[in-house]
Amino acid sequence: MVIDKLIAQIKAKQNPCIVGIDPEWSKIPECYQSEGLSSPNAILQWARDVIDAVADIVPAIKPQMGFFEVFGAEGVRVHQEVVRYAHNKGLLVVDDSKRNDIGNTARAYAYAHLAKAGPINADFLTVSPFLGTDSIQPFVDVALRDGKGLFVLVKTSNPSSVEISEATNIHGERIRDWLANYVHTAGRHCTGQAGYASIGAVVGATFPQEAKQLREIMKNNFFLVPGFGAQGGSAKDIVDCFNDDGLGAIVSSSRGVLYHHLELTAYDGSREMYRQIVKKQAQEMQTSVYDALRLSCSRLSY
Amino acid sequence: MVIDKLIAQIKAKQNPCIVGIDPEWSKIPECYQSEGLSSPNAILQWARDVIDAVADIVPAIKPQMGFFEVFGAEGVRVHQEVVRYAHNKGLLVVDDSKRNDIGNTARAYAYAHLAKAGPINADFLTVSPFLGTDSIQPFVDVALRDGKGLFVLVKTSNPSSVEISEATNIHGERIRDWLANYVHTAGRHCTGQAGYASIGAVVGATFPQEAKQLREIMKNNFFLVPGFGAQGGSAKDIVDCFNDDGLGAIVSSSRGVLYHHLELTAYDGSREMYRQIVKKQAQEMQTSVYDALRLSCSRLSY
Repeated sequence: MVIDKLIAQIKAKQNPCIVGIDPEWSKIPECYQSEGLSSPNAILQWARDVIDAVADIVPAIKPQMGFFEVFGAEGVRVHQEVVRYAHNKGLLVVDDSKRNDIGNTARAYAYAHLAKAGPINADFLTVSPFLGTDSIQPFVDVALRDGKGLFVLVKTSNPSSVEISEATNIHGERIRDWLANYVHTAGRHCTGQAGYASIGAVVGATFPQEAKQLREIMKNNFFLVPGFGAQGGSAKDIVDCFNDDGLGAIVSSSRGVLYHHLELTAYDGSREMYRQIVKKQAQEMQTSVYDALRLSCSRLSY
Repeated sequence: MVIDKLIAQIKAKQNPCIVGIDPEWSKIPECYQSEGLSSPNAILQWARDVIDAVADIVPAIKPQMGFFEVFGAEGVRVHQEVVRYAHNKGLLVVDDSKRNDIGNTARAYAYAHLAKAGPINADFLTVSPFLGTDSIQPFVDVALRDGKGLFVLVKTSNPSSVEISEATNIHGERIRDWLANYVHTAGRHCTGQAGYASIGAVVGATFPQEAKQLREIMKNNFFLVPGFGAQGGSAKDIVDCFNDDGLGAIVSSSRGVLYHHLELTAYDGSREMYRQIVKKQAQEMQTSVYDALRLSCSRLSY
């Protein structure tokens, strides 16, 4: 089961932190842009360098589909190659595409992103729940069938997320709690050997109190926690997303790892130094989160 | 402004009905699958035939991204070619991708799907609002900048849509009404000569009473009404989505037009007869909706 593979990687690397692959053209070092490659192929070279730099440190990468779609079909081809490259390096892939639709269209998205026989074949996919549970079910079905995982948006890190996630449904439940219960129930059918489910939730690090409450409902579901660093969440904030065993969450950073070179006057513009900076940032994130977990988790399992 | 182009097409063709381009491989006539083309190129040939068959009848097509993503990067290339082909035939394109994200990722999706300089360059894009208004704004920004349009999911046609759309937010507003007010306000900045805004809402035909209420809030916004035919909405049901001038909505059908041949024992399996069936179905939809509007709209403007 994919959740057991994730847990094995987290334990082996003592790291629940993952790195986003968000190719923002204007922020990528110029050395990648000036090697005579087309933009999508320059992105691919950049992404491979990032993956090489972090492969021994993180359990997974999280490519952000929007930044690949900017380049049209060629960008989508590069996205597929990035997933394959990460798999070859032994990393898991969280496909952050936030897909959502109903019926056959939802089934099509689930096949495209998650199915073993599909073109992307990611390990986990983020899913947006606005259309309701009958729109999530086709993704759950493919995840169960092919041993893959999902992260359903429950409470995102942006300020406006309160507008819908804190609303109350016709049965008197808060949307985020109702979604959390849905995730918890759906996860019962895909619980791995470590006791955690392959279906989890996106929970932002910017709302630590809400994260704590959601943790209570989704005891054995993993949280995908975006927003570490750049979006305002600190290592202290994200601790409440974890269980006492130091599991139950993966924390994602993109800008803090990928684009730290922009803040360094010492950066010499080379690919080699860029890879070193990315590696150092990934290591610092590991240290900072792992230290915070060691302080707060009485039963840290790794 | 794109909404004026849409209205001009609706009036010229006396038709507010559009056709979905949902390439479900298992339902596409075998003649397309057996011409020695790769699957994505067979889809392209099929889509061109559908567009040729309906180009004189409908104002727009609505390609459903999920069915293209099934074929990976090649499918996305075909999607781009379908959009271009429809534009060359004078049709508008509603890109039904239900994208949603925050910040730079939302900006990336908006660029990829809607920007004039982007790879798809659709006229309208469907957007999912789960993450809140700060996640919709980047799409609004690109729409305003490039003279494009949006349809924000407000009340979809599936049974589970009640789970979130009928919830009540922390200010005591129903989510669907709050979203309708947001759409109405955002539309003030892109109102065309005919008095309608380029920013509208997805409202399912399966909830006619709710559609009537939403029409009151979004008087000068267009509704994209999916679910005609196959999803259970009839011509009578969809009338409440329109204003008294017969404008304010476009009605979409996919299966009823694209896959009617599967119900015809007389279908001979040829491309020519398939095109005839598609054309006839599109014409029948036009007649049925236009007749219903003539009966119910006292000030039908076309």
